[in-house]
Amino acid sequence: MTQRYRTVTIIGVGLLGGSLALALKARNLTDTVRGAGRSPETLEKAAARGIIDASYLEPVEACRGADLVVICTPAGSVPSILDAIRPACSGSALVTDVASTKAVICSHAGRTWPTPLRFVGSHPMAGSEKFGPEHASPTLYEGCITIVDTNPAAQEARAAITALWETVGAKVVSIEPEVHDALVARTSHIPHIAAGCIARLAAAGGEITPFVGTGFRDVTRVAAGRPELWRDICLTNQDAIAQGLERLEQDLAEVRRMVAEGRADELDTFFEQARDARRKALGES
Amino acid sequence: MTQRYRTVTIIGVGLLGGSLALALKARNLTDTVRGAGRSPETLEKAAARGIIDASYLEPVEACRGADLVVICTPAGSVPSILDAIRPACSGSALVTDVASTKAVICSHAGRTWPTPLRFVGSHPMAGSEKFGPEHASPTLYEGCITIVDTNPAAQEARAAITALWETVGAKVVSIEPEVHDALVARTSHIPHIAAGCIARLAAAGGEITPFVGTGFRDVTRVAAGRPELWRDICLTNQDAIAQGLERLEQDLAEVRRMVAEGRADELDTFFEQARDARRKALGES
Repeated sequence: MTQRYRTVTIIGVGLLGGSLALALKARNLTDTVRGAGRSPETLEKAAARGIIDASYLEPVEACRGADLVVICTPAGSVPSILDAIRPACSGSALVTDVASTKAVICSHAGRTWPTPLRFVGSHPMAGSEKFGPEHASPTLYEGCITIVDTNPAAQEARAAITALWETVGAKVVSIEPEVHDALVARTSHIPHIAAGCIARLAAAGGEITPFVGTGFRDVTRVAAGRPELWRDICLTNQDAIAQGLERLEQDLAEVRRMVAEGRADELDTFFEQARDARRKALGES
Repeated sequence: MTQRYRTVTIIGVGLLGGSLALALKARNLTDTVRGAGRSPETLEKAAARGIIDASYLEPVEACRGADLVVICTPAGSVPSILDAIRPACSGSALVTDVASTKAVICSHAGRTWPTPLRFVGSHPMAGSEKFGPEHASPTLYEGCITIVDTNPAAQEARAAITALWETVGAKVVSIEPEVHDALVARTSHIPHIAAGCIARLAAAGGEITPFVGTGFRDVTRVAAGRPELWRDICLTNQDAIAQGLERLEQDLAEVRRMVAEGRADELDTFFEQARDARRKALGES
């Protein structure tokens, strides 16, 4: 069932795009990987590591005649890239992306691309605070949960994109873009924003380095991520993030009152619930 | 300069107390370690691992004739233990604790113990979500920042306690209890509470396990800690925690408005500041 892609185009050759290219090459599932990006330096790095075989500063050129196009740029730029490459993508080219939000992108493609839809949104949950082709790895997607959208207008393309991710080791979950965005707001976007606020609060207190332990390091690790990526995530998932942040503020205010008023039993319950909620979220209970 | 302690009493033989006992034994700096605790099971576990040589259910009994007493119980119980053991601690016994908050404990000792004060508050920043004597390790304190209080009434005892921690590999920082508590509120206590709220928010959204990545796992890791420990931390550092939580709520509300109103430039700035704040906090910039 494994499909070969003679020519694969990766738009945005960073951690995610670079790792997919390496994973396909390692399995001999492609002849040529084209890399497109705005930074000649990044493309050179990717070429030097053998991730891409040809470099393009213009996505449209990179897409002509490609069999598979994977858009690996921040979420906010995906709709305009879809607009730009649409004429260049032949009827048989399969197109996907890897952005962390899906509703804006998938609805844009649904509105503007011809049917049967050859674009299918993906979200491999494999990001980290590391980025750039220098961190790309052929094993990045092994065991990685990857969301694939459920648009019925893209039935054939969906099967192919699902197979693509499974081939490189990912576990595919099919889910509607809006449901996906609401879920990852709570498991990823809001934790990320909160980690940033926690880091800002700590640093506002003057010289704190000697008092920073592994707990702080872990809680704030994601805040080391790329600002432009996270700005785009916020701008393409506004409602779910804003609603979740408001609930988080209310919950923090409630705990603040427990602390200020010395309500021991309620604090016990809070910390027990927090521990249990984490276990539940991680599937440990 | 290395002081031997013929008899060491550890009250609360968990991760911290057990690790100190093992570190002292590994360096042949003690003949006998007595363990006191409420749970016969925990004491048995500690004895089976060679952490303690004698078990006591009654702290007072365990302290009679001891040369060094280390109180390793949650912060809230330390003042009453100090009251209980005071008559049993001979004039030459050195006494310290390892609780995560210092002002309440140190001021209690300063008010109730005779001078020159033989009690000195310590806070080795070595905790994690693991606990219990089964996780104790003789190397836990190597490189570990350890706060020692600055009470001038305990000058001689301070020097001895500083030497004790340095002997087992810790880096000692002397700081006033109130300053310590304000700093760790921001680097540890508030991040912990926020991690708990983040976990609760995520789990409130139904089945989320497939959408939980390493980011969530890291952000919420500390929420796996022991509820009674964190309740006590909150109750002995109320003002600093409540004030910091309020600032965190305000900061989250500000970011929420940026998201809801789609203010791209401000979001860029926020994520840049968050990244830089983390670097500064970790001493990387």
